[in-house]
Amino acid sequence: MLTRLQDGTVTSPLGFTAGAFAAGIKYQGRLDLGIVASDRPGPMAGLFTRNAVKSAPVLACRRRMSRGQGQAAIVNSGCANACTGPRGLHDAEQMARLAASHLGIQPDDVFVAGTGVIGTFLPLDRIAAGVSRLSLDRQGGHDFARAIMTTDTRAKELAISVASAAGSYSIGAAAKGSGMIHPDMGTMLCFITTDATVDGRFLQEALARVAETTFNMVSVDGDTSPSDTVLLLANGRARTPLIGADNGADFEQALLEVCTYLATSIAADGEGATKLLEVTVNGAVDDRDARRAARCVAGSSLVKTAIHGADPNWGRVVCAVGRSGAAMDPDRVNLSLNDVPVMSAGMPVPFSEDALRLSLQSDHVCVAIDLHLGPASATAWGCDLSHEYVTINASYTT
Amino acid sequence: MLTRLQDGTVTSPLGFTAGAFAAGIKYQGRLDLGIVASDRPGPMAGLFTRNAVKSAPVLACRRRMSRGQGQAAIVNSGCANACTGPRGLHDAEQMARLAASHLGIQPDDVFVAGTGVIGTFLPLDRIAAGVSRLSLDRQGGHDFARAIMTTDTRAKELAISVASAAGSYSIGAAAKGSGMIHPDMGTMLCFITTDATVDGRFLQEALARVAETTFNMVSVDGDTSPSDTVLLLANGRARTPLIGADNGADFEQALLEVCTYLATSIAADGEGATKLLEVTVNGAVDDRDARRAARCVAGSSLVKTAIHGADPNWGRVVCAVGRSGAAMDPDRVNLSLNDVPVMSAGMPVPFSEDALRLSLQSDHVCVAIDLHLGPASATAWGCDLSHEYVTINASYTT
Repeated sequence: MLTRLQDGTVTSPLGFTAGAFAAGIKYQGRLDLGIVASDRPGPMAGLFTRNAVKSAPVLACRRRMSRGQGQAAIVNSGCANACTGPRGLHDAEQMARLAASHLGIQPDDVFVAGTGVIGTFLPLDRIAAGVSRLSLDRQGGHDFARAIMTTDTRAKELAISVASAAGSYSIGAAAKGSGMIHPDMGTMLCFITTDATVDGRFLQEALARVAETTFNMVSVDGDTSPSDTVLLLANGRARTPLIGADNGADFEQALLEVCTYLATSIAADGEGATKLLEVTVNGAVDDRDARRAARCVAGSSLVKTAIHGADPNWGRVVCAVGRSGAAMDPDRVNLSLNDVPVMSAGMPVPFSEDALRLSLQSDHVCVAIDLHLGPASATAWGCDLSHEYVTINASYTT
Repeated sequence: MLTRLQDGTVTSPLGFTAGAFAAGIKYQGRLDLGIVASDRPGPMAGLFTRNAVKSAPVLACRRRMSRGQGQAAIVNSGCANACTGPRGLHDAEQMARLAASHLGIQPDDVFVAGTGVIGTFLPLDRIAAGVSRLSLDRQGGHDFARAIMTTDTRAKELAISVASAAGSYSIGAAAKGSGMIHPDMGTMLCFITTDATVDGRFLQEALARVAETTFNMVSVDGDTSPSDTVLLLANGRARTPLIGADNGADFEQALLEVCTYLATSIAADGEGATKLLEVTVNGAVDDRDARRAARCVAGSSLVKTAIHGADPNWGRVVCAVGRSGAAMDPDRVNLSLNDVPVMSAGMPVPFSEDALRLSLQSDHVCVAIDLHLGPASATAWGCDLSHEYVTINASYTT
């Protein structure tokens, strides 16, 4: 049984503490440096950007993944530390050492993340000063979630408790989204904690599977970041039996719930977004086609502007499917917007334009496409494309 | 030798006439129906959208392509006649018959095109009334170019005369661009005429090669249209020797000049655009990589908004290359904006931010990327992403 914890956060699972500090990395007087840590090391699962350009923190994390173990993560917002060469990698390692020294643990057990401007070096002096003054406690989760935000307008965090045959435990998480989200840069960062006792290999596999249908189905602007990072640390403090591939279905279901919440939150809080766009494709030949079609619609600038204007311009949806590469027979496609059928078997269906416009003004717009070709389905999440998105991104480095 | 003709248009080559009429298809009092015709049939080359959703006019054209011969084209703006099923195809054929009857030629020699809203049926009565009142003449090229515009702000047309070993002839062209341009929908339409005598097979091959480096390297918004159409009719009226693969280099060069002009004009006049964005990639492993990298940068929403704001946020350019799928070693990449180096061997290069911001305010911004991996180069054209783009597309069907 899954229960959403009230006010849950990354420190809700046993043995986790967190804290944050306003270190003045880019802005003044705003939390921009955070640490989350467990009181003991445990198996750490991680997923990182597929962009060929990888930030120094991502390279530092990947180097640690061969051990599959971690105890803490330190993250800054304001500087991505990407396109910074060997000096950037040295700086990322130094950031890990600063946190390790502060926590009294091994630098190899400290993972590093960052988000912000590309092509600037880390202000290590400010980070050193910030780390030395940062205190971690069991109530620090909310501050941590705020410290990783850039243009996000809301913190994205939750925790759920799980009561299952494999014992009781909880999972907490915090994420940031906003821009350069496809996923790939403005950056998606996600930190997940659990006090369950989980086999390391299963932990990584479960995270990868869950990400396929959650984070990897979100698009804010089609651009991907050099910094995208998802980390999941299991410290075993809840003293459950060992959870692995044979008994891990409940754990994976709980992880799916956590990641679905964060993924939809990231989409709804995309840069400049006023609406969550949910695109469901049914009847695709296979999962790959269903996902590419759903993602292509959710990422289409023309669909996103139409949704912004509550304009029932459904032809743009069909055309986005048509260019997605998914197998389709245009004469078999059904399409509805917020449950109002607008196209059936490839032909327009009469509908009340006024009523549909009104419905499209809500802050959650659902597009449903049935290709009528096969058994596969997928859902992708995006947001509308607004004037505010242009305003934000026309002066990001300023 | 190539000479750009003053005031050149689709009727500059010998034997071509054109005309247009305000038929009230979507808007009142605006040219929206056009016909261009030759006084004799000739080889017709054509390229059409690769979107799986193809408009009825595209299907009608493709049906005609097996003969490889044509004499005229009729086009309307305001209604794409796409997602309209068998009735749409019947309507497109009827539109061809109306033009053929008016011109006294065969319906199979009349190609059909359309651009505008998807999912609405053609107002055949208005088209019939318009065709009957439409007169064609040698001066009709300019009106034709205006009749195919939708949200375009400028007509896009030119003609060049060619003096070569294969004799003297001219090539004229008119195109529309604006939105749903990747290419693929708001629609790219292009009509090219020539009075050269050209072998039909060579005509098609040359057009396909030229389109690869011109129209297919333009992106306005990443969306592709069900209506994209390029038609090229050679009527032989200049009485040149037969131009084919063995003696066609000059012809292909002239065609490249025509299509490059139209492609850059389409990009510069993209929906809401205030700037032409020119992205050149050098040092790629092969042409395919060079093109995908250049296109990915030109299509990136984050790059386009940064250019709009004259913000030298070059990290976005590198990341767009990084997600393009092109082979790259981030530590070897050089990057410059309007000839100002900003990144060298993967590391930031100091530059005067004020001076670069000033330079980026011009209406033509050049991004140059050197991957330092191989011999291949490509150039892609796009435009900035502005508030006006959002405004236009949030209420397109209204």
